Amino acid sequence: MTRCHSWATGITAAVLILYFAFSDPQLAMERSDMKRARIRDLGIVVGTLPPGPLNAITDVEGVRVGHVTKIEGKGKLVPGRGPVRTGVTAILPHSGDIWHEKVPAASFVFNGCGELTGLWWVRESGFLEVPILLTNTHCVGRVGDGVVSYMQQQYSQLGIGDDVVTPVVGECDDSTLNDIRGRHISEADVLAALRSAGGGPVPEGAVGAGTGMICYGFKGGIGTSSRVLPADQGGYMTGVLSLCNQGIKEELTILGVPVGRQLTGRSVTRKSMGSIIIIAATDAPLSPRQLERLAKRAPLGLGRTGTVGHNGSGDFIIAFSTTNRIPHRPEKNTRTVTALSDRSLDSLFQAVEEATEESILNALSQAQTMEGRDGNIAEALPLDQVKTILHH
Amino acid sequence: MTRCHSWATGITAAVLILYFAFSDPQLAMERSDMKRARIRDLGIVVGTLPPGPLNAITDVEGVRVGHVTKIEGKGKLVPGRGPVRTGVTAILPHSGDIWHEKVPAASFVFNGCGELTGLWWVRESGFLEVPILLTNTHCVGRVGDGVVSYMQQQYSQLGIGDDVVTPVVGECDDSTLNDIRGRHISEADVLAALRSAGGGPVPEGAVGAGTGMICYGFKGGIGTSSRVLPADQGGYMTGVLSLCNQGIKEELTILGVPVGRQLTGRSVTRKSMGSIIIIAATDAPLSPRQLERLAKRAPLGLGRTGTVGHNGSGDFIIAFSTTNRIPHRPEKNTRTVTALSDRSLDSLFQAVEEATEESILNALSQAQTMEGRDGNIAEALPLDQVKTILHH
Amino acid sequence: MTRCHSWATGITAAVLILYFAFSDPQLAMERSDMKRARIRDLGIVVGTLPPGPLNAITDVEGVRVGHVTKIEGKGKLVPGRGPVRTGVTAILPHSGDIWHEKVPAASFVFNGCGELTGLWWVRESGFLEVPILLTNTHCVGRVGDGVVSYMQQQYSQLGIGDDVVTPVVGECDDSTLNDIRGRHISEADVLAALRSAGGGPVPEGAVGAGTGMICYGFKGGIGTSSRVLPADQGGYMTGVLSLCNQGIKEELTILGVPVGRQLTGRSVTRKSMGSIIIIAATDAPLSPRQLERLAKRAPLGLGRTGTVGHNGSGDFIIAFSTTNRIPHRPEKNTRTVTALSDRSLDSLFQAVEEATEESILNALSQAQTMEGRDGNIAEALPLDQVKTILHH
Amino acid sequence: MTRCHSWATGITAAVLILYFAFSDPQLAMERSDMKRARIRDLGIVVGTLPPGPLNAITDVEGVRVGHVTKIEGKGKLVPGRGPVRTGVTAILPHSGDIWHEKVPAASFVFNGCGELTGLWWVRESGFLEVPILLTNTHCVGRVGDGVVSYMQQQYSQLGIGDDVVTPVVGECDDSTLNDIRGRHISEADVLAALRSAGGGPVPEGAVGAGTGMICYGFKGGIGTSSRVLPADQGGYMTGVLSLCNQGIKEELTILGVPVGRQLTGRSVTRKSMGSIIIIAATDAPLSPRQLERLAKRAPLGLGRTGTVGHNGSGDFIIAFSTTNRIPHRPEKNTRTVTALSDRSLDSLFQAVEEATEESILNALSQAQTMEGRDGNIAEALPLDQVKTILHH
Repeated sequence: MTRCHSWATGITAAVLILYFAFSDPQLAMERSDMKRARIRDLGIVVGTLPPGPLNAITDVEGVRVGHVTKIEGKGKLVPGRGPVRTGVTAILPHSGDIWHEKVPAASFVFNGCGELTGLWWVRESGFLEVPILLTNTHCVGRVGDGVVSYMQQQYSQLGIGDDVVTPVVGECDDSTLNDIRGRHISEADVLAALRSAGGGPVPEGAVGAGTGMICYGFKGGIGTSSRVLPADQGGYMTGVLSLCNQGIKEELTILGVPVGRQLTGRSVTRKSMGSIIIIAATDAPLSPRQLERLAKRAPLGLGRTGTVGHNGSGDFIIAFSTTNRIPHRPEKNTRTVTALSDRSLDSLFQAVEEATEESILNALSQAQTMEGRDGNIAEALPLDQVKTILHH
Repeated sequence: MTRCHSWATGITAAVLILYFAFSDPQLAMERSDMKRARIRDLGIVVGTLPPGPLNAITDVEGVRVGHVTKIEGKGKLVPGRGPVRTGVTAILPHSGDIWHEKVPAASFVFNGCGELTGLWWVRESGFLEVPILLTNTHCVGRVGDGVVSYMQQQYSQLGIGDDVVTPVVGECDDSTLNDIRGRHISEADVLAALRSAGGGPVPEGAVGAGTGMICYGFKGGIGTSSRVLPADQGGYMTGVLSLCNQGIKEELTILGVPVGRQLTGRSVTRKSMGSIIIIAATDAPLSPRQLERLAKRAPLGLGRTGTVGHNGSGDFIIAFSTTNRIPHRPEKNTRTVTALSDRSLDSLFQAVEEATEESILNALSQAQTMEGRDGNIAEALPLDQVKTILHH
Repeated sequence: MTRCHSWATGITAAVLILYFAFSDPQLAMERSDMKRARIRDLGIVVGTLPPGPLNAITDVEGVRVGHVTKIEGKGKLVPGRGPVRTGVTAILPHSGDIWHEKVPAASFVFNGCGELTGLWWVRESGFLEVPILLTNTHCVGRVGDGVVSYMQQQYSQLGIGDDVVTPVVGECDDSTLNDIRGRHISEADVLAALRSAGGGPVPEGAVGAGTGMICYGFKGGIGTSSRVLPADQGGYMTGVLSLCNQGIKEELTILGVPVGRQLTGRSVTRKSMGSIIIIAATDAPLSPRQLERLAKRAPLGLGRTGTVGHNGSGDFIIAFSTTNRIPHRPEKNTRTVTALSDRSLDSLFQAVEEATEESILNALSQAQTMEGRDGNIAEALPLDQVKTILHH
Repeated sequence: MTRCHSWATGITAAVLILYFAFSDPQLAMERSDMKRARIRDLGIVVGTLPPGPLNAITDVEGVRVGHVTKIEGKGKLVPGRGPVRTGVTAILPHSGDIWHEKVPAASFVFNGCGELTGLWWVRESGFLEVPILLTNTHCVGRVGDGVVSYMQQQYSQLGIGDDVVTPVVGECDDSTLNDIRGRHISEADVLAALRSAGGGPVPEGAVGAGTGMICYGFKGGIGTSSRVLPADQGGYMTGVLSLCNQGIKEELTILGVPVGRQLTGRSVTRKSMGSIIIIAATDAPLSPRQLERLAKRAPLGLGRTGTVGHNGSGDFIIAFSTTNRIPHRPEKNTRTVTALSDRSLDSLFQAVEEATEESILNALSQAQTMEGRDGNIAEALPLDQVKTILHH
């Protein structure tokens, strides 16, 4: 049976995962790490800026996140049949009508060996007019098609009297655990992720597009974090959500400590070095030029978790501001916008770097051990060991 | 009945088009223009370099092109049902195993308000490892998914023991004539376009992805052209294939003459200003850096056909060389490649500009009048008038 | 005697040039072309938009231009001594305090084989805070140093309590006519160009930085043009000033006619293919992102004059808007700016393309024949022949 | 008396600095830190790859470095007179004829608020054909002019029968310590730096262009480091030289430890956030595309020293390979080059990141306390404190 559900009904999946975990004697050894936590709750504090109330991208008002997690089958890979360890994640930049109230946006491609469709349009127009979807590499087409369905359903004149639409879909490769050839994300899954998207706490780890991802040799996936600036610097909120599939064990660095070299647990060695998609949201009134500069800082936060930025890792960053929305069909040729001085950017740079770094660590600290196709296992980052190493 | 067929069986479609054309009294007036021709056959010679034997992208040895043209229904638009005026075009960079013998490639995005997926990977890696597909905007996802199917069929270890794949799919908006919301390109159409792809003459005009396109207010679509350098400059062959959907009537310029302003025929006015996708192939041993420079010259050829390069026009160029192929899994860390001196680039720049300009004119001079959804008609460029204006 | 003078006292130089011209029997044949004109005054009308009152970049309110032309000596080159055929041109974006009221700016590098210093800062900051200077290739350092002198004189705290400054200096290679090794532009010349800069008609042809430049094999140099939009499209003024040193005779195209191939006059053949620097100014309230898009269209206008965009040609475009000025030390973190909808850009694109094309033709039609070092002669474009060819 | 000397005669300058240092009672307190060291000699080991024999950019065979350090006067700033705390540094990519044997090169601009002239040419051509010079911001013009002098002296046909030259000059702002308005670098200084350039150990800290620089609130300047790959990965040597003027004290991070927050010494607070220029050299046979990818990794090493990448920091990276040299006037149109597989890049990425990080720490650990204009003092990084903090 295919277990396709939004995160609101994620309990079944969690149960399923735990079943896998504990039914495997090897995994039983990892029990002490089964209790997952956010990295900050372990006393590991990244940077100096305070997080928002949820320490999540949803701290930026109006930003919504929805996951559909697909876990099905076990054992030997039968291409097209499973096992399935994948999903789709939707990020909506605000709670209104995105097509008619576009948001300023930009991107930075740190390493292009991956895909984030629709980026050329974002760069040229300086705005984002669709939700951002994340999934596995071979499902990009299907998920993009699902976004077109979603947009066509929302806007009946799209492609008739109105413009056409270009989806924004990012991907990482989950083929170590997942039957990626099976392309198990359907239009219905995309619609479910979009419709279930909400504010509030964001499920992290092996959920949504993160279900089958591996990060620094351990189970990775979705992580999020946020930072709020002091009131005298505008009090702006900046949030990051990352789909983490990058790095090798030996690189993993936490708070500057090369933890990965000291961890003794079993880790996954992949030929491919994975990828990361980073989404940064802010309510600071940034222009596309400024958002590109913001996006360009995210790799510094990424780099502090240890990766060298591998040749085959598709590392894409997309950033948007929820302020200064752009009308789809402006009534007048000109409008008035609020511009932030570049001299105020430094603390926003710091915010995005800290939130990026923490989002990656959250993906690791929240993800549960996952057994995938052919018995491939991505173990949860052993948090006890991490704490021991850091407090040594 | 859906008429889905490769260009090898294009006669039915042509009959159908002619039926539409002549059954409409207004169109009957255009009879004298019904006989289409390549622009050069009208005595209109672009530039000074000689074309290759076919004056087509297939003059570059090994390059193959396949079209699937989909024409179905007539009259009022019923979204999802038709009328269908669309298609898909496949370009394969050589006749061998593209995945294992990648070709050096690069791109230039003259205006990003459109989509050509997979371009970040091409830019970062410097190679193309998949066929290039062209289609309509809302079918990009389905066509990309079809490319994944094609690649998975070809390579059984893709996504298992081998890497994952990112499709390269470009688009233009054919919604003035076509039921674009219906997304009428299926996986089977993509596979048919890829499998029917061959060398030899390339059908032009309202075929493949060009079926529903409009160019400078007239019926546009697919055009192609080539140039060969003198033997003392290496004798290299450079070919261009364009999917032409750009511009407004008043801009149309042929051999420097502002023909569009003088043409009296009925032309289409669109809100959106269309787009163009340009594919340049060469057997000159160019590096990705040099190919990017080559791609950057194509807009000069485009500009000479009159467009200002509209805000909403997604103008993408991708260029590849068939020489210096890159192994998928190299046996050694280093290999030997042939490098062309930058001092030899000027005539290649000229070649790509001339072939781009001529390919656009060929799309116009070859395309037949097409009636699409809601009785929208894109008339064929009236060649008699053009000749009269030019020879005045 | 060194003849260093601002254009306000340009008569001496003109006399000197005429002396050269008529003392040479070969040149006397060109007498009929000695009377120079702006291209539009010859009945050659580029495009469809109307020019501003002066048909010059100075039609954009506040923009000022100053030239210093240096002509000295004759005959055999003695490196370091002469003959001197060079100069410097200054463009100030407005008539106020540029450092404290910066203007939004951007650039596009069509071909990077040249130099326009300070461009990275312009791109990153999105503004221009210094005048733009143009000169010959080997004088870029000295001219940049002169700009630092100018700025230090204007702002006594620069480099002490205030920021440091990065000059914006563009160049072309005038070594066919000029003793470029002599680097004959001094700090005093730079200051004179800046201080003599004014509004009003802009001297064109062999003046300022254009003194020794060659364009399409004929005498080139400085050209300018402007376009004004209809009132219902905002009535914005866009002006272009070009330093024209690009192309070979066979390429020269005027109004789409390949004039160069038919001209019988003597033209200069150079190993190097020259370069062009294009400066676009507008009072439309464009953001840096939009100005970059504007700059990206200038090559279409350039391409319509015939060049293929040679390998060795450094083709740089810088664009700025005089609206929405940016304070040096903002009092508040945010300010309000006017934003133009991207949907209004098309006519600005057209304006910049037409003004670019016409500015290049003006440089050619205004430049007088110039004899330079070693008796190298760049003849004036034979306007009678051009008219005959065009009206044929 | 102006003390202008190459590093070969650096002893006078060192004596002078010590004189300043110890004649100031405040500075005497810092005595224990006066003994400078390379960071590795303090037991602080960055990364896991081994350095080359010199742990310097000169480990890449043929790379030469020359410094001219200018220290003059003391006390109150008299603009134009001093005090002088500046210099110039030259890096030559190989020991042969750079103009006729150009090296493949590329760049990455992490933050463009600074200057590295000539970069557009490097990017377009894919090669470096001149030495790289580093200096202070206001001397860029004079140093560029000095490079033209140097090239003209070397190549008598430059600008006559041969091409013209575009200098590559990078800068940082040393105005906190130096009379930057005085522009105290002369043509003679540039020539001296170039002519004194050699292989062997590279003086670090407050030498050459680094003389007046400040880094993380402490005395910064020049630092260098190198890494060698294992033989089975090609055994390639990669070296980095950085001109370090970036960051604020609170950011300084060493081996992941936020040392800056804990250091109690007096540090400099600047309005401007400085800049960094990073030069990476390798003997791996990289193409310009690959070198750009290498350059793009340097910010990860930079980021690990703590900076957020400030708005006003001009952070430029230029990378070159000493292999596959490009002839100035090729005899044939094509030549054969060695290409490294992208799959071999990861360890080179690691090398450049580690060498960048260590080069910055070396600049800090080697620089002596410097008193500059108006009694402004940049203290040496207190190494004893650093060690205590790290070993705590």
